[in-house]
Parts: sequence; structure tokens; C-alpha cells
Amino acid sequence: VGRIDLNSDVGEGFGAWQLGDDEALLDIVTSANVACGFHGGDPRIMRRVCGWAAQRGVAVGAQVGYRDLAGFGRRRMDVAADELCADVLYQLGALAGIAAAEGATVRYLKPHGALYNRAADDPEQADAVAAAVAAYDVTLPVLGLPSSALGEAASRRGLRFVTEGFADRAYLPTGRLVPRDQPGAVLSDPVVIAARTVAMAAGSITASDGSVLELAVDSVCVHGDTPGAVAIAAATRTALTDAGITVAAFT
Amino acid sequence: VGRIDLNSDVGEGFGAWQLGDDEALLDIVTSANVACGFHGGDPRIMRRVCGWAAQRGVAVGAQVGYRDLAGFGRRRMDVAADELCADVLYQLGALAGIAAAEGATVRYLKPHGALYNRAADDPEQADAVAAAVAAYDVTLPVLGLPSSALGEAASRRGLRFVTEGFADRAYLPTGRLVPRDQPGAVLSDPVVIAARTVAMAAGSITASDGSVLELAVDSVCVHGDTPGAVAIAAATRTALTDAGITVAAFT
Amino acid sequence: VGRIDLNSDVGEGFGAWQLGDDEALLDIVTSANVACGFHGGDPRIMRRVCGWAAQRGVAVGAQVGYRDLAGFGRRRMDVAADELCADVLYQLGALAGIAAAEGATVRYLKPHGALYNRAADDPEQADAVAAAVAAYDVTLPVLGLPSSALGEAASRRGLRFVTEGFADRAYLPTGRLVPRDQPGAVLSDPVVIAARTVAMAAGSITASDGSVLELAVDSVCVHGDTPGAVAIAAATRTALTDAGITVAAFT
Amino acid sequence: VGRIDLNSDVGEGFGAWQLGDDEALLDIVTSANVACGFHGGDPRIMRRVCGWAAQRGVAVGAQVGYRDLAGFGRRRMDVAADELCADVLYQLGALAGIAAAEGATVRYLKPHGALYNRAADDPEQADAVAAAVAAYDVTLPVLGLPSSALGEAASRRGLRFVTEGFADRAYLPTGRLVPRDQPGAVLSDPVVIAARTVAMAAGSITASDGSVLELAVDSVCVHGDTPGAVAIAAATRTALTDAGITVAAFT
Repeated sequence: VGRIDLNSDVGEGFGAWQLGDDEALLDIVTSANVACGFHGGDPRIMRRVCGWAAQRGVAVGAQVGYRDLAGFGRRRMDVAADELCADVLYQLGALAGIAAAEGATVRYLKPHGALYNRAADDPEQADAVAAAVAAYDVTLPVLGLPSSALGEAASRRGLRFVTEGFADRAYLPTGRLVPRDQPGAVLSDPVVIAARTVAMAAGSITASDGSVLELAVDSVCVHGDTPGAVAIAAATRTALTDAGITVAAFT
Repeated sequence: VGRIDLNSDVGEGFGAWQLGDDEALLDIVTSANVACGFHGGDPRIMRRVCGWAAQRGVAVGAQVGYRDLAGFGRRRMDVAADELCADVLYQLGALAGIAAAEGATVRYLKPHGALYNRAADDPEQADAVAAAVAAYDVTLPVLGLPSSALGEAASRRGLRFVTEGFADRAYLPTGRLVPRDQPGAVLSDPVVIAARTVAMAAGSITASDGSVLELAVDSVCVHGDTPGAVAIAAATRTALTDAGITVAAFT
Repeated sequence: VGRIDLNSDVGEGFGAWQLGDDEALLDIVTSANVACGFHGGDPRIMRRVCGWAAQRGVAVGAQVGYRDLAGFGRRRMDVAADELCADVLYQLGALAGIAAAEGATVRYLKPHGALYNRAADDPEQADAVAAAVAAYDVTLPVLGLPSSALGEAASRRGLRFVTEGFADRAYLPTGRLVPRDQPGAVLSDPVVIAARTVAMAAGSITASDGSVLELAVDSVCVHGDTPGAVAIAAATRTALTDAGITVAAFT
Repeated sequence: VGRIDLNSDVGEGFGAWQLGDDEALLDIVTSANVACGFHGGDPRIMRRVCGWAAQRGVAVGAQVGYRDLAGFGRRRMDVAADELCADVLYQLGALAGIAAAEGATVRYLKPHGALYNRAADDPEQADAVAAAVAAYDVTLPVLGLPSSALGEAASRRGLRFVTEGFADRAYLPTGRLVPRDQPGAVLSDPVVIAARTVAMAAGSITASDGSVLELAVDSVCVHGDTPGAVAIAAATRTALTDAGITVAAFT
């Protein structure tokens, strides 16, 4: 009965610098958020990752961020709406150009880092992102946080909004994530993470106060840049399959 | 009987910095080489210029360069073939993404600055550029120097190669340009430039030694970033029309 | 009796891109805020401007900004304190290295754009800037807004804080600037600007509601990047001299 | 009787990206070539590395490169002499600014990657580097390849030139390195590398054809960015000490 997508950030190195084990992750996930060069990723890395994704039938998504290589897109920036919209179009098109050469197509968009967080709360930046997607291709889904400004903006712009959960993050009773700087915000036990993913795929998650939240998500995000990340992602996928849940791209 | 395209570099500012009078040039030329962000141009400028070009029916081309903002793409770089190919795909796609939002389409590609010169002589870099275009869209023409390595690479990759001349540059009897650091390399008299453009449209040009070269070009490049550039471009277009030559995009 | 410094931003071009007429401004001002490469300025431009300043006896200051070339340092960024501190040290040292080759010395520091505004209000970023200056050279003055977080941080760190006013900006009765997006925020009449500068040098300024503010500033900032800017700066200097006020660097 | 310096590249990460184990290397080497931000290194990393070097009494040197983050400074670039000179001054000063805050001083300069190779052969770029050092501080030594254009330029500019050898690279009978793309160019056996370092410290090295070259070097470069690099560096230092050779900075 259940069905879920697993997404992960990939292609986040730059030039001589590596980040994470992209090829191993692409053996596990069904959707790949490919960094588009503004906060990480360069054209050669993007092309390699698109090729790997295409070989494995993994859906390619545009992981767009602020123009901030030094901060890896993790610093909030006051980017004007028209500029942010153009920046998103640029990154979206750039990935599409690279993907085309590997026989792949961009299937969705997901904001990265500080832009992800800001687009969840700030209607203006959320709308700038949604406006870019709508101008580029109104059939392209946007992946993001449930009950977010980005979700509202996407709906208003006529876009499909796909929701995601985080298996390795604690949730507040409100449905928001426990901030990273609080104890217990990030989980590391593969067994716990796998079990929470199975629960999410079934529509609920236990919050930090022990209450059970209903949480309907289309995709679960797994990370690839922490120690043991690939092992956790693999355990998560196995647990889903064992629970009879179909793991497949949402696209 | 005659027919010629006029092309010009546009969108070469960056952030707060302007370069040339794009809007005035777009009233004159029939093909616009839009800088794609690696040596000049940023997403907001690219979008504005694509909108202006679309309004005027001017063909949009991807002006791709080395990743060298500080040097404006004018410094030769030893970029490996696979990296250069990916860089070109990235820029091509980025412009296509921006253009799409303005109802425009990328119609051709032209390398910029040091990449233009190197791709004219260096078969490896020429092939990397041609390979990118062929992988992206084999129907996309490449604009460049007649009798160049880029022309050969384009033909080998099954691409249409469109040749261009320079109305404000002196030619050697060999058909190559007189290097910029030599006296008389760059012409500035609008009357002379216009007359030379008309001659080029008819298939010949007087070289620096007075001999007459046959020079079959599909397009003539006019510049927009020098004093009086727009006036020269306008005079050139008028002279062509007065001579009964049709000025139209090659695409 | 009166004495005032005139400061201006210079060296804000980048690569092929020019901004303002640096050489003309350096004939007028007594302190030059040289952009240090993060938001504008490149090493060649920095060196040229330092040479011109040295020839004219103009004091060289480090105009430090966020690492944001595309936004010209005008976009607020959430830069962590340790990172901002290191960024300021880097820019300060870089300018000192360039200046040394021209026989000049860095005499003060002034933040640029969004960092200027944020350091006026945000104690954490203000302290990061002051900490950098104190670690680099505790005798180096900091130039900024009166009654600002930066002024407090500088004092706490044992630094001399030099205050500045803006002759071409309207003031609120609170002593803060009228925001740029409000009507009348920026003045353009050279006669008015010159008269206001003379008033500031004498210790007061008329606010937007007609009330007279006491405003003790050590320096007045003149701009160089707007049409007619150099003429306004020159008129301002002449008016000061005519009023018997000494125009001299605060250093 | 013998005495040698061990140098290594450090601080070559950028933002979120790490490269090598800087802290472990700084326990072994006597001179640290700190990347200055143009090809790698950012201000926060630079500061951390300068602090570690200062704690251990390791000499800090400026590892300057081309402005090419995407290529890690490994791609030759046609940078004009005045521009390269300013770029070197900028990087040198930037590191000095950072180092000052950690109680350290820049003791020498070493070019990185493609600039290292080009300055070994190209008198114009070599002189631009030497001119920058001479203008900055004529007492600052330059570290580089024996019998190189850089060595000649440094001498002409009145600078001390310090020569280095590579313990993990094969040498041609001419004294030049076997190019990296040839078999056997890079050695990996810690025992062999340590033995070759001891031989170099004594003034000779066995070339790729078995002949023994006289090679007087002041410093030996050990690498930190390859698997097992730190173990090799440690074994090298132990072998030198066991052979009665003093390992100490050349400064």
C-alpha cells in the first residue's frame, strides 16, 4: 500500500574538492538533488553525477542555492526577488544543459541550505523561487517542507508541490524540525533512522516530546555527507522494502 | 541579392557594473551574443537582455567563455577538454533557462575572447566546444572565424558553422586579423567601417597591404563597448540597407 | 576653527568593469576608501588607486565588504562572527600588501554597503569587524556612523572611532539617514549639498522635518559613482575652503 | 653536518570543503605553504592553519596561485605581468594580515601549481612574481625549483632564492621532474621516499635512468593530500633524524 521516494543531495563537491560518496548514494536513492554550481557543484561534477543517475534510473532534480561558494549556500542572504528568480532560472537551465548531454532530464527542483530555510518562511523569496519554476516549466514539481511558504507559493503559481521529511532529524510537536544547535536534533542510530522512515512512509512520526504527529510526506531526505551516511541510507532503504513499502521516485 | 547578419556582444556587465549600451545595440543588430556568466553577464542582466532581444525579434546566441570574471575571459587558459565541454554545456543551458522565461530560444553559440581565439587555432579546445554543442542540440549553429579549427571541429561534429567578419578590424593578406597590438589593427572611422561592411556583404575585403581578399562571411560583428560604437553600428546598418543588402539573422 | 575630512569610495571597478572617476575624486578628497576585492576592486585596480592616492597625499583606508561580487556587497548576509573577522583581516592585509608596493600605508578601515549598515545595528557583526582591526593593529581607526553598534564595538576593543556624515543624504530627526527608497532621501543639488557639508563641519544639520540636529562628525562622505558626482564633490570642497574650514585627513 | 627543511602545502580547503590533514602535517614539517585564497584556502582556514603553525613554531609561507578556484590553480593562464604582480602582492598581504592576528609572520613565498611550473620556465611570469616579493619585502625568500626562471628572476631582484626537491617524484637525468603523466613519475613507497629524502639532504638523488644527480636543495617538499601522505611524511622525518640530519626551517 505504501510508497515513498528517497532523495539525497549529490554533486556537492567543487573542482579539486570532494564531498560525500555520490556513486554509492545513487545506488540507494530514487531522486538525486544535483547541486547546480552556485553553492557547490561544478559543470564536470554535475555531468558525472547526471550520467550516474541516468544509468541507474534515478530522477535528477535541480538543487539550487544562493550564490555563495565560500559559505556553501548556508548563509541567509537578502537577495531581491527579481535577482533570485533569475538565479534560479540560470541554475535550472544550466543543469538541464548538462543533463541533456547525458540523456537525462531535470524532473524537479529543491532549494538548498539557507535558501531552503528562508523559502520555507519568507513569502517573497518563496515566490521568487516558484516564479522561476513556473516561468521555466509549469509542469516541474518543487520539493520542500510541508506547510511552508514555498508550498503556498508553488500552489499559487500552479506548480505541484512535493513534501519531504527528514529521517535523521528530530521534530517539534508543531511539525517543524528541532533546530540543529539543540541537543538531539540530529539522529545517528541507523536502526532508529530506518524505523522512523518506515513510520513516515506510513504517515506519522514521533515528535521530540513523545507525541505522534501525522506527517504526510512524498519523499524522505537521506544525507550523504556525514560519517556512516551511506550505510544509514542503505539500511533505511532495506527497512522500507522489508516493510512492504515501494521505494520509487515521485516523478 | 546580398544578405548579411549583424551580430554584437551584449549583456557583458556584471552586478553593479555596466558595459556598453545593450538596448541601443539591440535596435541595430540581428543577432545578439549574450554573455553567459563565466566571463561576464549575470542572470538578471541575461534576463533583461533576452527580453529586449525577444521584443525586437533579434536572435539570441550563447556567448560562452572561460571561467574568468577577473580577466573578462580574455586570458588563455589550459582547460582540459572534458572540463571545457562541461563548462560550455552549463553556459548554454543557463542561457536557455533564462531565455525560456522571456519567450526566447537560444539560436546559436559563439565563443568569447581568449576562447574564441584559442578555438580558432587549437583543435582540442575547438573540439571540446563543438562536442558540447553537438551533445546539447546538433541543430544549433556555431558562429566563428572562417578557416578555423572551430569550423573544422563543428563540421566534424555535424554542426552548421556560420562565418563572421569584423568590420572594424584590419585583415592580413592571409585572411587573419591584424593583431590588436599593431598599428592600424582597429579602425574607428564610421564611414570606412560601413564601407568595409558593405564590401564584406558582397564577398570581399581590402587587406592591410592593399590586396583584395575574397571573404565569404554570413555575419559581420559590430562592437558595442567602445566610444561611438553604437553610432558606428547604426551607420553600418544604414549603409548596408542603402546598398540594397538585406540585414537579417542567419538563423 | 573648523576642520573636516572628505572621504570617498574609490577603486570599486573589477577587471574590465569601471565604476566612477577615481583619479578625479582623488584630486578632491583627503581620505580614500579603497575597495579590497570582496565586493569590488581587484589587485590591479587597488594598486593603481593606491599609487594615485600616494602621489596626492590622500590617506588610504580599507573599504571592506561581504564576499559578494554579484551583489556589490549590498545584500545583507548572515556571516558568522569568526568568518567575518577573518574576512576583514584578509581584506585589510591584502590592501596593505598592495599599498606597501606603492609606498602607501593603510590608515583606517570603513565597512562597505550592507556590512556598513549591518555593523551599525548588529552588535555581533560590529564586534567581528572591530575584533579584526584590533587583532591587526590596535592603532588603526575605524570610520562609521555616529551612535552605531560599530562605534560601541570599536570603543570596547580600544580602537579610535571616527564618525562620518553624508552631505547628499537627508537625515531623520533621530539622526539616522532617511532610507534610500523614500522620496527626498538622496539630494542632488550641488549648492544644497555644499551648504549642508559646511553646516556639518560646523556641527549641525537640518533634518527632514526642518528641525536642526547637532551632528558632530570628523569626516563627510562624498560619492563618486553618480552622474555629476565629481562636480558635486569639487563644489563641496570649494565651499568648505571658502567658509574658512580646513579640509584635511583625520589621520 | 646535514640540515634540511621539510615543507608542505597546507590550508588548501575552501569553505565546506576539506583537503588533507593540516594539523597532522604541521606536527611533521618545518615550513608550511599556506594557500592564500586564489586557488584554495579561505580566510577562516588560513587563520586556523596560521594558529596551528604558530603554536608549533612552523614557519609560515605564502602559497600564491592563479585566481582559479574551479581549477585549483592547476591550469596555466596567460596573466599579464602587472596583473600577476598585483595578484601576488594581494595574496601575500592577505596572509600577512591573517598571520598577524595569530602572532605569526610570513617568512617566505612559494608559487602553487600551474604558476609554480610556469614561473620555472617563463621569464616574464617569473619576474612578475619576484617583482611582487621585492616590492613587498626584499628580505623575504622565495622557494622554488633549482635552475629555474624563478630563481634567476629572484636573484636579479635581489631576493634570496631557496631551492627545493621532491622526495616522492622521479627525476630525469637533466634534473627536471618526470612529468606526472608518465609511469613511475610519482613514488608511493614510504621506505623509498624516506631514503631519497636522506640522499637529497646529503646532496644527491638517483635519476630515472639510474644515474646519480648532484642536487643541492635547501628544502624537501612532502605532500599531504594523497592517501597515506601523513604516514610518509612522518617516516621521512624519522629517517632524516636517524641519519643525523637536522630538520629545521630555512628561515
